[in-house]
Amino acid sequence: MRVFRCTSAQLLALLNREVAHTRVLRRYLHDGRLRVSNMFQPMSTRQGKVTGSKGKELTCKSQRLMLQTGLIRQAHPGTFHLMAPALRAVEKLVRLVDQEMASIGGQKVEMPTLTPGDLWKATDRWDTMGTELFKLQDRHKADYCLGPTHEEAVTEIVAAQSNLSYKQLPIKVYQITRKFRDERRPRFGLLRGREFLMKDLYTFDTSEETACDTYEGVGQAYSRVFNRLGLDYVRVEADPGDIGGSLSHEYHLPADIGEDQLLVCAKCSFGANKEAMAEDQTSCPSCSGPLSLTQGIEVGHTFYLGTKYSSVFNASFLNNKGQPQLCEMGCYGLGMTRILAAALEVLSLDDQIRWPGVIAPYQVYIIPPKKGSKEESASQLAEELCDIIPQQLPHLRGEILLDDRSHMTIGKRLKDANVLGYPYVIVVGKQALESDQKFELIQQTEQQTQTHHVSRTELLQLLSKSVTI
Amino acid sequence: MRVFRCTSAQLLALLNREVAHTRVLRRYLHDGRLRVSNMFQPMSTRQGKVTGSKGKELTCKSQRLMLQTGLIRQAHPGTFHLMAPALRAVEKLVRLVDQEMASIGGQKVEMPTLTPGDLWKATDRWDTMGTELFKLQDRHKADYCLGPTHEEAVTEIVAAQSNLSYKQLPIKVYQITRKFRDERRPRFGLLRGREFLMKDLYTFDTSEETACDTYEGVGQAYSRVFNRLGLDYVRVEADPGDIGGSLSHEYHLPADIGEDQLLVCAKCSFGANKEAMAEDQTSCPSCSGPLSLTQGIEVGHTFYLGTKYSSVFNASFLNNKGQPQLCEMGCYGLGMTRILAAALEVLSLDDQIRWPGVIAPYQVYIIPPKKGSKEESASQLAEELCDIIPQQLPHLRGEILLDDRSHMTIGKRLKDANVLGYPYVIVVGKQALESDQKFELIQQTEQQTQTHHVSRTELLQLLSKSVTI
Repeated sequence: MRVFRCTSAQLLALLNREVAHTRVLRRYLHDGRLRVSNMFQPMSTRQGKVTGSKGKELTCKSQRLMLQTGLIRQAHPGTFHLMAPALRAVEKLVRLVDQEMASIGGQKVEMPTLTPGDLWKATDRWDTMGTELFKLQDRHKADYCLGPTHEEAVTEIVAAQSNLSYKQLPIKVYQITRKFRDERRPRFGLLRGREFLMKDLYTFDTSEETACDTYEGVGQAYSRVFNRLGLDYVRVEADPGDIGGSLSHEYHLPADIGEDQLLVCAKCSFGANKEAMAEDQTSCPSCSGPLSLTQGIEVGHTFYLGTKYSSVFNASFLNNKGQPQLCEMGCYGLGMTRILAAALEVLSLDDQIRWPGVIAPYQVYIIPPKKGSKEESASQLAEELCDIIPQQLPHLRGEILLDDRSHMTIGKRLKDANVLGYPYVIVVGKQALESDQKFELIQQTEQQTQTHHVSRTELLQLLSKSVTI
Repeated sequence: MRVFRCTSAQLLALLNREVAHTRVLRRYLHDGRLRVSNMFQPMSTRQGKVTGSKGKELTCKSQRLMLQTGLIRQAHPGTFHLMAPALRAVEKLVRLVDQEMASIGGQKVEMPTLTPGDLWKATDRWDTMGTELFKLQDRHKADYCLGPTHEEAVTEIVAAQSNLSYKQLPIKVYQITRKFRDERRPRFGLLRGREFLMKDLYTFDTSEETACDTYEGVGQAYSRVFNRLGLDYVRVEADPGDIGGSLSHEYHLPADIGEDQLLVCAKCSFGANKEAMAEDQTSCPSCSGPLSLTQGIEVGHTFYLGTKYSSVFNASFLNNKGQPQLCEMGCYGLGMTRILAAALEVLSLDDQIRWPGVIAPYQVYIIPPKKGSKEESASQLAEELCDIIPQQLPHLRGEILLDDRSHMTIGKRLKDANVLGYPYVIVVGKQALESDQKFELIQQTEQQTQTHHVSRTELLQLLSKSVTI
């Protein structure tokens, strides 16, 4: 008989497979309830210290709150780990943007991060983007950059379709992928990182006229995105900068820490980035009204590119006379991780996070009574709520978090719940045991914190108004 | 009055805003039906040529089919664009894996691609991984690699939690992100690329015993993933290789083009990668039965790591005596884009794609009659089906594709539908206009292609069996 090479762990695994199997079943076939004690989200609010952030760098409210609540963790200057609840919010934002892109006929694709240097040399951006491009070489010494944007790559795909007919246009392809930019001064957490999630849409049209229609349609989709998030935004004329093209708008969330200076008309809807205006412009070029200066965090940018890229790569289509003609292009960005951080920046209180409701990581946070307290028996009611709510309100499936740290007082856990800022907090206390059963429901929005003492029916009624995605 | 700098396009946009608005509404507020003519998925089956693939390199069935049908497009050797339907399949696979990770308590996070060189130097992998690591420097000449795997990064996160209690373990965090590997010989399309989507789970346990339970639980989750995809797989003992640790298994799809040699027992469930066996092993070490050799495509890998990484970074917890103790770790990979390509490799016919049903980009493909044909009026019935099916069967919302290229014969479009391999093809032909109304429903699975002539009720009955995610 042969000897089989086998480590102690392997032996253990072989021998104990049956025993282990039983234990595994016990451990994994859980009841589907999400418990705070099982979450790996290291909060450091009580210690009062923020891990992962060097003292020297500039910080802001959203960065501080996101670090304190363990939503993000700095990996290196300008790069961050997204912990589970933050990623849930990002994934919800992705779904929301996917819906709005689908509504304008956008098709979702993914292009590689590793972008061949040759493509960027063809448009001169290999040099003009300078030190902001992360450059590297593969084992064959071929040049690559980590795509900060993908005009070159997408234009090459379209250029390769030699028989593209005008009937197939407009083409609208977008991706939601990580982008890279070697920022000189990364700061403000996810607001200006070196690796970030961006939605980039590229459009190819037959004429300047239809390209303007497309441009307008994307703008409307962007409005819907910000409206659904409940965010006030400003759309301003912008300087096309490195990307090029002749028409460009930025989307900003007004905020003190915003790095852009915006001139906004008090009378009409005109607005412009100060960079895009003449130095001495003081009145609105549209209605001559007074312009006021405000700071903004840029969360989106749209460009009408014309044939700047299609001419380099010869991205053309056959027009209705069968003749080749260059595509009229547009490109459209939304900073996904930046929208999340900017939203928390503008919505949050000083020491409590507030979310755009629809993308809050969880909608409902349930606090059962303390272990050993007089009302301890109400904890079963709390557990039941975890099942009843999604049964009655299917849109809340997976949206309910049970704070099972029952060694802590309700008060301490409520403090955490306030800091985490999930839209609905339910406290199951002694009133839940009384004949006139009541639950405490705390609605946390940016504007106000409302407390209701409600019956189970009223509770479900109030929760039914929550919007999820 | 001041002059506002304004290009012709800007002027056009300003003047025509109202006109454009109307056109935009007309263009974008569409009926929600997905039409083949609007899809940017350049098929090259009819020209018989495969774009984007250099003639010299090795190719395989899945790569050829995916290129021909425009599911992928080569960007550079070893990197690929995922076009819209391919990305839809990947996103479905992600949802399926998310569900199975949630079922074992996995929490989804995201770690940066840019991984500090210092972390990799701490475990010596900066050197031992050699030329397969993509390395780069930032503007400050700091070293980074593009993460091919994240043991170092995740261990550092856990190590930073100084007060981790044994009650908080096991920790199970995973991500589904792009990984990078500078392959010497990228080949077979998505099967061996330089940039690929991987699910990597990392677990932290209090003891070898509980770590083995966790290991077993992940194995069961992997079984469920492959079972739900309808894929035959082999689980074999493996050589831990670079990653380290003492217990390791690989998950393979048996296939001729597989690059691994597997020894599988005909009598019991034993299997091993030939690399992990003694040179002269010919009989099963478990039951002494005969071992047979088979080729496999590796789609998953699990490792019990022990304290190999936790000891380097001092990732410890406080045990029930309040003393610090090193975490027992495991890591678990699933090659997401590789699973997709390997599934198509093993399920597809020579010239027709077949999908794991649950992750097919679209479930239903509807072909209306040719324009100008006698049965042309049936095209309205086809359009109606696009609305009726999702109304009656909500799980098919967004799953129905209408091949509106009505200048083509039904036969030509049916040929495309066969090549694309979506599970259900509905032909709305002349029988749909007869008093005894019938639709042709073609069910396309790996095993067979079944054609049914059915009434609308029977059609919905058959479609109700489709499984989506």
